[in-house]
Amino acid sequence: MKRILVLNGPNLNMLGKREPDVYGRETYEEIMTELSSYIDAKGFKADFYQSNIEGELINRIHSAIGFYDYIIINPGAFTHTSVALRDALLSVSIPFIEVHLSNIFSREPFRHHSYLSDVAKGVITGFGKYSYFMAVDFLFRIM
Amino acid sequence: MKRILVLNGPNLNMLGKREPDVYGRETYEEIMTELSSYIDAKGFKADFYQSNIEGELINRIHSAIGFYDYIIINPGAFTHTSVALRDALLSVSIPFIEVHLSNIFSREPFRHHSYLSDVAKGVITGFGKYSYFMAVDFLFRIM
Amino acid sequence: MKRILVLNGPNLNMLGKREPDVYGRETYEEIMTELSSYIDAKGFKADFYQSNIEGELINRIHSAIGFYDYIIINPGAFTHTSVALRDALLSVSIPFIEVHLSNIFSREPFRHHSYLSDVAKGVITGFGKYSYFMAVDFLFRIM
Amino acid sequence: MKRILVLNGPNLNMLGKREPDVYGRETYEEIMTELSSYIDAKGFKADFYQSNIEGELINRIHSAIGFYDYIIINPGAFTHTSVALRDALLSVSIPFIEVHLSNIFSREPFRHHSYLSDVAKGVITGFGKYSYFMAVDFLFRIM
Amino acid sequence: MKRILVLNGPNLNMLGKREPDVYGRETYEEIMTELSSYIDAKGFKADFYQSNIEGELINRIHSAIGFYDYIIINPGAFTHTSVALRDALLSVSIPFIEVHLSNIFSREPFRHHSYLSDVAKGVITGFGKYSYFMAVDFLFRIM
Amino acid sequence: MKRILVLNGPNLNMLGKREPDVYGRETYEEIMTELSSYIDAKGFKADFYQSNIEGELINRIHSAIGFYDYIIINPGAFTHTSVALRDALLSVSIPFIEVHLSNIFSREPFRHHSYLSDVAKGVITGFGKYSYFMAVDFLFRIM
Amino acid sequence: MKRILVLNGPNLNMLGKREPDVYGRETYEEIMTELSSYIDAKGFKADFYQSNIEGELINRIHSAIGFYDYIIINPGAFTHTSVALRDALLSVSIPFIEVHLSNIFSREPFRHHSYLSDVAKGVITGFGKYSYFMAVDFLFRIM
Amino acid sequence: MKRILVLNGPNLNMLGKREPDVYGRETYEEIMTELSSYIDAKGFKADFYQSNIEGELINRIHSAIGFYDYIIINPGAFTHTSVALRDALLSVSIPFIEVHLSNIFSREPFRHHSYLSDVAKGVITGFGKYSYFMAVDFLFRIM
Amino acid sequence: MKRILVLNGPNLNMLGKREPDVYGRETYEEIMTELSSYIDAKGFKADFYQSNIEGELINRIHSAIGFYDYIIINPGAFTHTSVALRDALLSVSIPFIEVHLSNIFSREPFRHHSYLSDVAKGVITGFGKYSYFMAVDFLFRIM
Amino acid sequence: MKRILVLNGPNLNMLGKREPDVYGRETYEEIMTELSSYIDAKGFKADFYQSNIEGELINRIHSAIGFYDYIIINPGAFTHTSVALRDALLSVSIPFIEVHLSNIFSREPFRHHSYLSDVAKGVITGFGKYSYFMAVDFLFRIM
Amino acid sequence: MKRILVLNGPNLNMLGKREPDVYGRETYEEIMTELSSYIDAKGFKADFYQSNIEGELINRIHSAIGFYDYIIINPGAFTHTSVALRDALLSVSIPFIEVHLSNIFSREPFRHHSYLSDVAKGVITGFGKYSYFMAVDFLFRIM
Amino acid sequence: MKRILVLNGPNLNMLGKREPDVYGRETYEEIMTELSSYIDAKGFKADFYQSNIEGELINRIHSAIGFYDYIIINPGAFTHTSVALRDALLSVSIPFIEVHLSNIFSREPFRHHSYLSDVAKGVITGFGKYSYFMAVDFLFRIM
Repeated sequence: MKRILVLNGPNLNMLGKREPDVYGRETYEEIMTELSSYIDAKGFKADFYQSNIEGELINRIHSAIGFYDYIIINPGAFTHTSVALRDALLSVSIPFIEVHLSNIFSREPFRHHSYLSDVAKGVITGFGKYSYFMAVDFLFRIM
Repeated sequence: MKRILVLNGPNLNMLGKREPDVYGRETYEEIMTELSSYIDAKGFKADFYQSNIEGELINRIHSAIGFYDYIIINPGAFTHTSVALRDALLSVSIPFIEVHLSNIFSREPFRHHSYLSDVAKGVITGFGKYSYFMAVDFLFRIM
Repeated sequence: MKRILVLNGPNLNMLGKREPDVYGRETYEEIMTELSSYIDAKGFKADFYQSNIEGELINRIHSAIGFYDYIIINPGAFTHTSVALRDALLSVSIPFIEVHLSNIFSREPFRHHSYLSDVAKGVITGFGKYSYFMAVDFLFRIM
Repeated sequence: MKRILVLNGPNLNMLGKREPDVYGRETYEEIMTELSSYIDAKGFKADFYQSNIEGELINRIHSAIGFYDYIIINPGAFTHTSVALRDALLSVSIPFIEVHLSNIFSREPFRHHSYLSDVAKGVITGFGKYSYFMAVDFLFRIM
Repeated sequence: MKRILVLNGPNLNMLGKREPDVYGRETYEEIMTELSSYIDAKGFKADFYQSNIEGELINRIHSAIGFYDYIIINPGAFTHTSVALRDALLSVSIPFIEVHLSNIFSREPFRHHSYLSDVAKGVITGFGKYSYFMAVDFLFRIM
Repeated sequence: MKRILVLNGPNLNMLGKREPDVYGRETYEEIMTELSSYIDAKGFKADFYQSNIEGELINRIHSAIGFYDYIIINPGAFTHTSVALRDALLSVSIPFIEVHLSNIFSREPFRHHSYLSDVAKGVITGFGKYSYFMAVDFLFRIM
Repeated sequence: MKRILVLNGPNLNMLGKREPDVYGRETYEEIMTELSSYIDAKGFKADFYQSNIEGELINRIHSAIGFYDYIIINPGAFTHTSVALRDALLSVSIPFIEVHLSNIFSREPFRHHSYLSDVAKGVITGFGKYSYFMAVDFLFRIM
Repeated sequence: MKRILVLNGPNLNMLGKREPDVYGRETYEEIMTELSSYIDAKGFKADFYQSNIEGELINRIHSAIGFYDYIIINPGAFTHTSVALRDALLSVSIPFIEVHLSNIFSREPFRHHSYLSDVAKGVITGFGKYSYFMAVDFLFRIM
Repeated sequence: MKRILVLNGPNLNMLGKREPDVYGRETYEEIMTELSSYIDAKGFKADFYQSNIEGELINRIHSAIGFYDYIIINPGAFTHTSVALRDALLSVSIPFIEVHLSNIFSREPFRHHSYLSDVAKGVITGFGKYSYFMAVDFLFRIM
Repeated sequence: MKRILVLNGPNLNMLGKREPDVYGRETYEEIMTELSSYIDAKGFKADFYQSNIEGELINRIHSAIGFYDYIIINPGAFTHTSVALRDALLSVSIPFIEVHLSNIFSREPFRHHSYLSDVAKGVITGFGKYSYFMAVDFLFRIM
Repeated sequence: MKRILVLNGPNLNMLGKREPDVYGRETYEEIMTELSSYIDAKGFKADFYQSNIEGELINRIHSAIGFYDYIIINPGAFTHTSVALRDALLSVSIPFIEVHLSNIFSREPFRHHSYLSDVAKGVITGFGKYSYFMAVDFLFRIM
Repeated sequence: MKRILVLNGPNLNMLGKREPDVYGRETYEEIMTELSSYIDAKGFKADFYQSNIEGELINRIHSAIGFYDYIIINPGAFTHTSVALRDALLSVSIPFIEVHLSNIFSREPFRHHSYLSDVAKGVITGFGKYSYFMAVDFLFRIM
């Protein structure tokens, strides 16, 4: 059975509590629960982790080595500032998909660049919570 | 029944004939046929159009007004150079999804900027032919 | 009798059908008809041409050689991207006026640069349909 | 009866005395006299002001509040350097048209940017003295 | 009674121990104690938090939701590098004031840009420990 | 008794008459009167000067030499364009505080740079009229 | 017998009719006729195509697959703006030589960059019509 | 007898009173008096003008037309910000020499660019008061 | 006896487990053990610390104050993004040497800039694990 | 009989000894000997000079004045860094052709700019040793 | 007796032989002879050196240590490209004046920056051969 | 026995004679003598070469082919300006170490970029004369 690690970066725990115009009204827990069921239904096994601390995300990625087949990551604001996260993902040689809830290209210019995209398998941005689900759809097709 | 217009820009007719390392071995016709079946199965109605001429794509978009509920567009190289295509999509007020087969962020720097992304619903890049299918998956969820 | 060629670039055929907040509610046909009457009243002879295909505009400019005294051109989105259109206008040695319906300087930054302005006689931007009429007013004064 | 304020910035008092290749041979006084007659004939009332001192232009704009319906301004070199002039025009909430005698886009690069254009109704550049007259033509059409 | 959260970013715990030419000789504890008394005297209730870990500051901001009326934050070096901190402050919809002890504009160029300033109520920079007190003065005036 | 010179740059005389969303509804005179009382109450002596002419502000600064202990300056639009004002302030060796009513960092990009900030004692931006009062509060603490 | 495709981009059909100071007085037809004879004399077989429409050039390149051994292309203004032309040339895996009549490096800065040069075999610029002939000379030496 | 106009821009009236490390201890009046004697001794006739108001300098330049053979100008801070001063000097067609007391190239980066230098006869920078005298020496040699 | 603190930033704990082409096959533990022996043999006393959390590295630096004579730091990805780390090192006034295993100048452009180098004693980059040893060699020579 | 000077810049003496993937296996001497024969056969007279010292190349160009009809120069790395070489070529008023063995546009970005190209007759790049021969072919056609 | 070293960089030996519109018709030898007489008449002792080889100029500067009181240098094209020349001048701690015959600010943009100006005593540019003489005039005044 | 070539670029012969604050008081000869002894003691054989002429350094590198196992180079100011030196080092395929006495990252911005670093084995900067010795230490470890 294929294993997936779903990672969420800073402030995503505030989903549903913050800026509903940008991010929607469902909470982080609701979305992850729904996603978990969806992944199970696809026949995969998933674990979930969220942290606001860059280094804790890095630690979680390190411990993923040899255990997961794919990572789905919404790096939040670390997308634009964290070389360390990029290095962590490269260090474990697990392919990953970068997802964003909002369309980062219609927001501030400093959100248009990602330190992860060029080393990701692919990027899905702008589809709200469905960005996660579409990543799973892709994994289901190829795994 | 919801209607979808699938647009493909320049050189995508060469799929399967060009650079298989980057774009895979399936031909444009094969992929679009498979996509057509998939869309039908989802209960949508789709039309397909490909052109290497920017203005013909614009004409096709203009004639879409009031007829389609969503556009899925792989703008190819026009992604990076065509303000006119952006204007055409805005002029018809049909929401659209931008898809790319390859991961444009791991290619030449001039492919990192898109004139369409900030006015798209969302962007899917890097998943090969599945980028189209994932766009359909999203539409199925929201329509 | 002096002859004028009025050229319109991509998406201008959608006038009145698109973004009325930006471009107004009159259609392209209505505006050109009114403009035609105005030019006639001034004692000039005018022809009109619109295309969404850059190369067709170039072809039309080439065929203008030795036939028209002035060109009034609203290059639309090609303003910002087409060196070929610039070269076409230079190649026929017909003086031209660049007009824009909207104020391009209050829109996206990529609309602030024009490949035509420095070789135009002058530029009129932001006066809605009257931008065309003011170009005619100028020609009436000097021809 | 509609009232128009015609403002001219630095060095425009030298018109006809300076660089005739760029600006023509008519003097500032001759052009403004002709313009005054033209505005009168259109049924408007106009006042004229020129200064080489940025702050005096600002003072004149402030005193225009509630008195004029439109401002026609040739800001001269202040076009490219004066944020204060921009603020003055915004502070009185009188719509204005920016005009230039020469084609600023075919001159030095530092003349290609204007601090006024994005907040102007529109811009007319390159038509010599007729740039003023065309601004009046526009006002006649809309007022 | 109004509640204020005073946040201090990385290295501010070293105040008084580091570079006295830049930051003065009073320790972090001394300044915060004096500030606490001042806030009490104004009739507000304040809590204080300092961390060198970006994610801990984010966590502290998240837990502030619905509890504080205003945040006074000296983000230290995170001012220039942390999009995540910006997002955290936006996510809780608590207005905040950005303060700096030193004048960041007379230091290295990379300290001239702040990821927080444009979404802050206001910015106070260069007044040593009094930057905090002046923020309180403002709150006293408006709350 | 300590003496303070309060300087205001271009368009600040229009306060209360212009863009109340940005600058509030109180007039320049009302604010300065209130500020004057506040300074008196603190035991300082203040003079006030406003001009829309850069050179008049410079002249006023020159005449301040040896007479004032501190300058509070709201340079308005000259903040972003006037090297001469910077030089004038340096030439008299009187320390000064730069204040802004609006938050210049949440406005147009050309307002993000100041020619004065790096040579100011400190900068206060975004607190409406209270920016002046907070500057006085600081002076009260140190003088 | 080796086969060569000679492609010419926008406005080159105007050769001899436009800007003789820059491009010389011989017409496009005269030059291509002379070039055709020269290629024949070298023992190659050549076809010629010119279009002002980017997409038609792309179509012509696509149909060249498996048929020509080398392409000689003067992309005209598309040199500087067309990523799609670059992709078309890459898609058919036919080596090509980029030629220019004028010295693009002594013209406007926007003509100094080419989207084709880095994937061309080589570039010949500035030798008037002889740029084409020199490309043939090279092919004669290596084929 | 040849006539020279010596112009000095903002803050130069403060010479000897400001930053003696940068500008020396002699006052503006002392230097101009010494310069006046030197010019007289060379057999020229000179007039002197200083203003802190850009527009007054422009007015003085305008009134110089047809009266002076050469202008020596120390534009002070206007060097770096005033396009209007450049235009004024061009408008009167009097050749001019740009002088600076301090070496502008060893000061802040924004002092490295001059709006006057490229249209000046020449530039003399860094020699203290002698920069003026050396300009006179040059005029003595050529006039 | 001189004391040295050896600090390692994010992902360096993965040495030997990640990208052996770039970083070699020895593990972090093996290298640090060998380095520890080498430092002992030189007669110094060393402590070692590694963290993936920026703030923990800062905390460790703060606690080093008055205890270590030199710091050897491989900041990993924080090299390019952490102003806070720079400030921490400056705050304790302990001289430090920046080392890198790989040659950062032959990697991605964003790795060419370091926030630490200009305040380091010196920088050693590209020598694999020997970069650490060479830093010790230097300390042995000067301490 | 027409005379040609063939100049080669730094490191070209290493041809055939260095990086054969980029520059081929023939030595400098072999190529120049073959080129010499070819030039003789065309009825021209040629001299050859190579130096790794910029100033020696300049000296050789100076001594060419009035003696050669054309210069063919491969400036090697001086292409990108030597203004002095550009000035030397301009100083002798001998037209010249710039040639490169490799395609400089597919190499490092700093090789994309040439200080010579805009003042050359034309540029030939990427054809290996044949770049020289093609330059001769051109001279044979025009001389 | 004070000693002066006059240094001239690349291509200045061609003075009078090259581009007389830019540099005048007098030869290098004629100018230096006249300059030599002028320096003698001032009571100084001068030596002269010109080279087209950067390193020879550096060698000459090194040998000047302890022997000359001032250097007058026209660095020619090395002005814009030679950090080594800057270092050589700094290494001997002899003050120097940078002179240029032409006005470098009215020439190509790459001539607007000098690697020497910020460490020179001053700069004289645009006065033809008199630039040298004016440097001597300055030395006469201060030595 | 392994052979090392130690190269020093421009102005390094002035070591000990120039700017002791930056470079120390030991002369070039003293340092090289000490280094020579150290290399001998390590069992290597070294040759030394210094020149202020870029092309002589290139010549020396060319003659090193097949003779030396490693090059240690302090390129001095050529670090920042010489593509030719880079090419020379690449042309001989001898690995090399780049060393600098001073910390180039704490000096002028134009010293922060090196044309050699990305093709060097590694870089050692800021350790005074010990930078050379540390390079030898590395070679001792690997050879």
